[in-house]
Amino acid sequence: MAVPSPGYSMTLRVETPASFSATSEIATAISAAGAAVTALDVAESNHSTMVVDVTFDATDADHGQRVQLAVDALESITVRKASDRTFLMHLGGKLEVVPKVPLRNRDDLSRAYTPGVARVCMAIHENPADARNLTIKRNTVAVVTDGTAVLGLGDIGPAAALPVMEGKAALFKQFADVDAWPVCLDTKDTDEIVAIVKALAPVYGGVNLEDIAAPRCFEIEARLREELDIPVFHDDQHGTAIVTLAALRNALRVVGKNMEDVRIVVSGVGAAGHAIIQLLLGSGAKHIVAAGRSGAIHRGENYVDEHRSWIAQHTNPEDFSGTLHQALVGADVFIGVSAPGLLQEEHVASMNTDAIVFAMANPDPEVDPAAAAKHAAVVATGRSDYPNQINNVLAFPGFFRGLLDANVSDITTEMLVAAADAIAHRVSPDELHSGFIVPSVFDAQVAPDVAAAVVAAVAR
Amino acid sequence: MAVPSPGYSMTLRVETPASFSATSEIATAISAAGAAVTALDVAESNHSTMVVDVTFDATDADHGQRVQLAVDALESITVRKASDRTFLMHLGGKLEVVPKVPLRNRDDLSRAYTPGVARVCMAIHENPADARNLTIKRNTVAVVTDGTAVLGLGDIGPAAALPVMEGKAALFKQFADVDAWPVCLDTKDTDEIVAIVKALAPVYGGVNLEDIAAPRCFEIEARLREELDIPVFHDDQHGTAIVTLAALRNALRVVGKNMEDVRIVVSGVGAAGHAIIQLLLGSGAKHIVAAGRSGAIHRGENYVDEHRSWIAQHTNPEDFSGTLHQALVGADVFIGVSAPGLLQEEHVASMNTDAIVFAMANPDPEVDPAAAAKHAAVVATGRSDYPNQINNVLAFPGFFRGLLDANVSDITTEMLVAAADAIAHRVSPDELHSGFIVPSVFDAQVAPDVAAAVVAAVAR
Repeated sequence: MAVPSPGYSMTLRVETPASFSATSEIATAISAAGAAVTALDVAESNHSTMVVDVTFDATDADHGQRVQLAVDALESITVRKASDRTFLMHLGGKLEVVPKVPLRNRDDLSRAYTPGVARVCMAIHENPADARNLTIKRNTVAVVTDGTAVLGLGDIGPAAALPVMEGKAALFKQFADVDAWPVCLDTKDTDEIVAIVKALAPVYGGVNLEDIAAPRCFEIEARLREELDIPVFHDDQHGTAIVTLAALRNALRVVGKNMEDVRIVVSGVGAAGHAIIQLLLGSGAKHIVAAGRSGAIHRGENYVDEHRSWIAQHTNPEDFSGTLHQALVGADVFIGVSAPGLLQEEHVASMNTDAIVFAMANPDPEVDPAAAAKHAAVVATGRSDYPNQINNVLAFPGFFRGLLDANVSDITTEMLVAAADAIAHRVSPDELHSGFIVPSVFDAQVAPDVAAAVVAAVAR
Repeated sequence: MAVPSPGYSMTLRVETPASFSATSEIATAISAAGAAVTALDVAESNHSTMVVDVTFDATDADHGQRVQLAVDALESITVRKASDRTFLMHLGGKLEVVPKVPLRNRDDLSRAYTPGVARVCMAIHENPADARNLTIKRNTVAVVTDGTAVLGLGDIGPAAALPVMEGKAALFKQFADVDAWPVCLDTKDTDEIVAIVKALAPVYGGVNLEDIAAPRCFEIEARLREELDIPVFHDDQHGTAIVTLAALRNALRVVGKNMEDVRIVVSGVGAAGHAIIQLLLGSGAKHIVAAGRSGAIHRGENYVDEHRSWIAQHTNPEDFSGTLHQALVGADVFIGVSAPGLLQEEHVASMNTDAIVFAMANPDPEVDPAAAAKHAAVVATGRSDYPNQINNVLAFPGFFRGLLDANVSDITTEMLVAAADAIAHRVSPDELHSGFIVPSVFDAQVAPDVAAAVVAAVAR
């Protein structure tokens, strides 16, 4: 399934004898090695030699190395230098902290700093609510992780998680003008994480928990929601749930089925699966079967884990107790937030007509999307190289914009549903079809619409 | 001693009958009330009325109110609206978090975020030292406070301290391109503060402790220095000490005395006093007497506080045991980091000829600078409205720039002395005189010079 991706883009600086055909020879070699040439510039040229910068997308890092060797193997051609464009982009980090006020002269300094700032401090001391007007608090979100469940990479630690949190913060600013700051904690102790986030709270108007392993993420979120007066959102749960619901609303429109009627199978009962089930129940779904590694979650079994118990109590009204594959027979909707390759084509074929398949395991989906599309009416994944990418970027920037604008302290199911509906409605009836059930992540109107929907939900 | 300051600047929107003399009448009333008019704009004008925006500096907030009432009391003149320019400047906070990388399209997203970012994460996971190249760590400093000793305001709490920390962060960026982030902690527990800063450390290349009350600040600093591999600097101690030493070097040049020979009296044995004494000893000073509230610190007494014991062991070789006033008789240098109004003119008069007086209590110095100047050769304060302002802004931005550039994990006395000398040398021999012993805080070359001096000290 691997295709060349700009995430694996390299630039080679190549020295070659001056000739009419040298550049096309290089480009041909790169294509023959399975990579996609995206740019080719002659950097230097004289009568005898040329220096060419050639940029290509590979399918992964090893492939990039093989392409480089293939170019180097060409007769009389030398690779002088290879640079990885992804690494170049990360040099020195991806964020900076910039003053919003001028500090050109003594007068500026007297107002922004001493002595003037003392009055601002005392105003907040006397009326703590003024912190939202007179400090960065009203527009600032902490992106908190302990680095235990980063992307699909697992427990790589807080330092290695930082590039992801920086990227997240950059997206917050880009799409919703929210100032987000990475908080990568060098501890995995639940009590300590809760205590730290509480202690940090004066600076922030909201907390976005990120890439914290289950089941700790549930307790951390629940305790912080209880103890803080600012909203706490676990993006891996609620961000995913919002975008999944948005996609499902539109997929149901495409196939002409109703949320209340469809039989839904959710594969994966971790953080994301749990939140998706909660939100689907809150949006009218009646027939959900959730499946973990040992099959369907049902009332007939005793679960140690309180989240599995909750799922057993609130889903699977018919107490179905078989495997994932058995559950799928005749189902209308498959939602996968689990592991690669759990399903084969025949399992999708066993579903009801006009089936909907969301295979969101990352980076490799639960089922080959091309195979699934032979039998399902709508197929979506978490990947950008297939249609219908279910991407949290559609949700979290606008959702926090709305929370901050409405000065919300607690997040409700109504707000999550409103956000999902706003995303779904960015796809107009004219645009809606099986290959376009969610808007582009670069649709600049998504975040403002989501923010407005959250603010409206607060006002209701 | 109060003079109008831009830290207390107000703008009044005034409605007046249209007349040739209206604006001058308003300006005259403001001047008569003791404020300084800094701008006057006619915002609207027709045949019968004018609307005038008049901006003035008051001496403090109450004075601003009185000036407003004085204008309002003028016949046929109405104040429509009064705005405090300092508060206007703080609306919405003073910092924003801005992406340094473009996120315009899918290719950008693939590199800055998923899937490309995963390789950057794994590179750091495999080689933790890469975090300094591939994340914001190398340029980012935490400005950490618990809000217990904010400016002269005392224990006003972390939320009310935030405007100061934002200002500090803005100065870091402005003067030395350091990205600084406010960490205002809602706890006063030493163990908890140490644990939190340790847990936060993966994101930061340095820690600037700020406005934490003594004696807790000493323990927090010492433990963090011990346990972290990034530099920890308490600005109230070491920043103040650097700038004090810089000023003293130049003051001694003005009067032609040597550090080794002069008798120095330090008033105040809190965080700043302790650090100043340490740095003066490290710069060759031999004759220092420190005085607290109960007089000179000397070996004849037993001090519970370990910092006072340290001072007793390392200063006052002659075991002088009298009062501050007695210590001053015949002294060459007074350095005050204590409380307003401790000295009268006669005490300065009792000092040696060509005395040096640094009265740095904020906002009101230990002695009226004008009275001190009648007897001392050099007078400096912490205030911007007198010559020779001893301001930490001269030190901390460039000092951290140097620490980050040199990838330093521990701060040494040599680095502090090098920074002080760099600041002192920004005043050329031609410029040096009793009213100009420290460069302007707006001298853009100070921070680069300080940074270079720190880097050179590391290399030695």
